[in-house]
Amino acid sequence: MPSQISELRAFGLAVRLHRERMHLSQEQLAGVAGFHRTYIGSVERGERNVTLSTISRLARALGITPVQLLKDADRVRQ
Amino acid sequence: MPSQISELRAFGLAVRLHRERMHLSQEQLAGVAGFHRTYIGSVERGERNVTLSTISRLARALGITPVQLLKDADRVRQ
Repeated sequence: MPSQISELRAFGLAVRLHRERMHLSQEQLAGVAGFHRTYIGSVERGERNVTLSTISRLARALGITPVQLLKDADRVRQ
Repeated sequence: MPSQISELRAFGLAVRLHRERMHLSQEQLAGVAGFHRTYIGSVERGERNVTLSTISRLARALGITPVQLLKDADRVRQ
């Protein structure tokens, strides 16, 4: 799939879009979700192969479900 | 959420339900998805904090999307 961005990059972009929608800084999202700020940055850049637990914690902190977060990642990707 | 099964356990059950729906053994699913048979067993028992890449490989092998697989895990959980 050469013209597509990677799944992890799309996931990271979806996290960033939701974070910005909520007017949160990376540091604020990190605080709410219980991660380090630099970890949020690396997730948003698609550098982390996030686990299901991480997907859920991020989704919860963003006020959405894990299903919705993956749906939005799909949308970003297409 | 004391009366709920864990998210990872629900994910594992959703994988098993789809695998059985396709009449695949753990070994066959492992072969299609490119994992070891014992790994599939541990995922189905909820013992693995699966990554997004693993969720996608399993979903693809089961003929569904990652979003659908997480939706079914939610359904199993409720």
